[in-house]
Amino acid sequence: MELPGLSAMAAVELEDALRKVIAERDLPLYRMMGFQLGWVDEKGETVSRPPPDRAHGALALASAQAVNGDFRPAIGYAVAVELVQNFSQIHVDVEDGNTERAGRPSIWWTWGPAQAINAGDGMHAMARLALYDLRHDGAAPDRVAAALKALDEATLRLCEGEYLDIAYQERLALSVNDYLAMAEARMGALFGCAARLGAMAGPHGKPEAADRLAEFGSKLGTARQVAGDIAAFWGEDERDQVQQGRLIAKKKSLPVVHAMATADPTTRRRLGDLYVQRVLDPASIKTVAGMLEASGSRRFTQDTLVRLLAEADSAVASAGLEKKGAELLRAAARQIAGEAG
Amino acid sequence: MELPGLSAMAAVELEDALRKVIAERDLPLYRMMGFQLGWVDEKGETVSRPPPDRAHGALALASAQAVNGDFRPAIGYAVAVELVQNFSQIHVDVEDGNTERAGRPSIWWTWGPAQAINAGDGMHAMARLALYDLRHDGAAPDRVAAALKALDEATLRLCEGEYLDIAYQERLALSVNDYLAMAEARMGALFGCAARLGAMAGPHGKPEAADRLAEFGSKLGTARQVAGDIAAFWGEDERDQVQQGRLIAKKKSLPVVHAMATADPTTRRRLGDLYVQRVLDPASIKTVAGMLEASGSRRFTQDTLVRLLAEADSAVASAGLEKKGAELLRAAARQIAGEAG
Repeated sequence: MELPGLSAMAAVELEDALRKVIAERDLPLYRMMGFQLGWVDEKGETVSRPPPDRAHGALALASAQAVNGDFRPAIGYAVAVELVQNFSQIHVDVEDGNTERAGRPSIWWTWGPAQAINAGDGMHAMARLALYDLRHDGAAPDRVAAALKALDEATLRLCEGEYLDIAYQERLALSVNDYLAMAEARMGALFGCAARLGAMAGPHGKPEAADRLAEFGSKLGTARQVAGDIAAFWGEDERDQVQQGRLIAKKKSLPVVHAMATADPTTRRRLGDLYVQRVLDPASIKTVAGMLEASGSRRFTQDTLVRLLAEADSAVASAGLEKKGAELLRAAARQIAGEAG
Repeated sequence: MELPGLSAMAAVELEDALRKVIAERDLPLYRMMGFQLGWVDEKGETVSRPPPDRAHGALALASAQAVNGDFRPAIGYAVAVELVQNFSQIHVDVEDGNTERAGRPSIWWTWGPAQAINAGDGMHAMARLALYDLRHDGAAPDRVAAALKALDEATLRLCEGEYLDIAYQERLALSVNDYLAMAEARMGALFGCAARLGAMAGPHGKPEAADRLAEFGSKLGTARQVAGDIAAFWGEDERDQVQQGRLIAKKKSLPVVHAMATADPTTRRRLGDLYVQRVLDPASIKTVAGMLEASGSRRFTQDTLVRLLAEADSAVASAGLEKKGAELLRAAARQIAGEAG
């Protein structure tokens, strides 16, 4: 992902650093990781397509650029958050039974669930190994320890969010606030961590800006989940398989939660009839979308997205950045929230 | 697990510290963790049975006691290795389809595979959160960073071993060295880490003894897997469900690998016929055990166990410990290798 205001070299250097972490090792276990990261096919042959969206890593780099005028000190942190995001995707694909990810078969669909769970665990451990190497770059030990702790806390929050996301599949009565708390944990925590680590990176990192930028990233990640819900029902591009799978599996999306909580009794009963099935019939998605439009839930969801992005902006405004840095982060937020996933 | 030479308070204090990490949090996610750790039933009600074997934590404490004359500085490390061991068990039970663990339903059998994968991920993140708190106890930042790195490297080795363990299920031609390398990664690495962290613990930790004790723990963990293989075929107690499941799923055990590599052609063909089935018929286990006895593979496996424990002893002898400490670790090794799992 190239972000406005961030040198095109940032994406290149992040990709090189990610490759270095994985390519140093040569068990087939690491080939599975290379597949997940988009570099090789299932036989280990190099593929020529561009790597997937690295929104988490890009946000860490953008945060460092905005705070410090230089993205490079955050490369190690960007690697770490990308590895957490990707280990989590590998596991979510098993959990949700996603057979595709980014237009290719998912890891578990290719190598089976046992190897997929294990490869995800290995990538989880590697996410932090990338950070210890920062010591060689002269990072203060206390800074590295604080970064590690922030990363583990965000990972645990992500698991709390994932717990709720799964538990809510079978729940009809859910408030908008229940949904937002789940989305904040499931998507906001790791984006918040990415922005926090970027702000802390390097000898001139600004820990005092880190809390505000963590808030910025958290709102942005939550917004990205909401934008994903909108795209799943009303997107015009080719539909994302993972997002469509979430709908079918009755993972809760904000417009549905809103309608269940606020629509007229007839709409709520019709939605309830559809959502009491084991899965949502894919043919019903258009029907549901029409009901959500009529109930005002599409509008409510769009308003919520705008509100979350405004809150992200406010967090940036209070971080004490120079104008150019603040603008960079606002533009990054629009792009990251727009490319939902 | 109470180890000879280690105060009975060690097990009590480890259990209290583990409880403190989990009980501070109250989402249902943490109830699943409490279930795995043996404290509560699936409804969250306290159970009165003693907690399961904490062999990894006990080894970390024994190592600190042997090096330093005091187990207490290693409590945080013992918590961390136990949480890694337990997150790994949660995932292995999904991977291998184990419906039981330590005489109770496994996590995935109770809450489903999706929540089990996610709860394991959460426990993986928590393993390290236990270590950051050591800073409050005055541990030097460099020491804590080295411990974290050792833990992550051991976890990655464990994943490498698990990769091989799964991959070897469908392979007949396997050498004894292939098996031992897999067992060393799968079981040796985390026991090695436990012993290493114990040696590094506290202000008087001896990093110079840590490498030797890591070697000790690694041999001991490998021995424990070999002992588990022996118990699975010839154990006299009630059979361990997980070990029996491994046999049925054609997970490779040392006597089978040895026989496939060295027995006469008739025995090898008969074994091959049994192992080419999708699963090993449980009724065949006795037949296989008889063949392994006749081929000398039981004897070879027992000799290997003795050799691994002798190598563990040698590593202790070269660690520069006082006699009492060395004796404590040798006795611990006998007990940990004997209680296979």
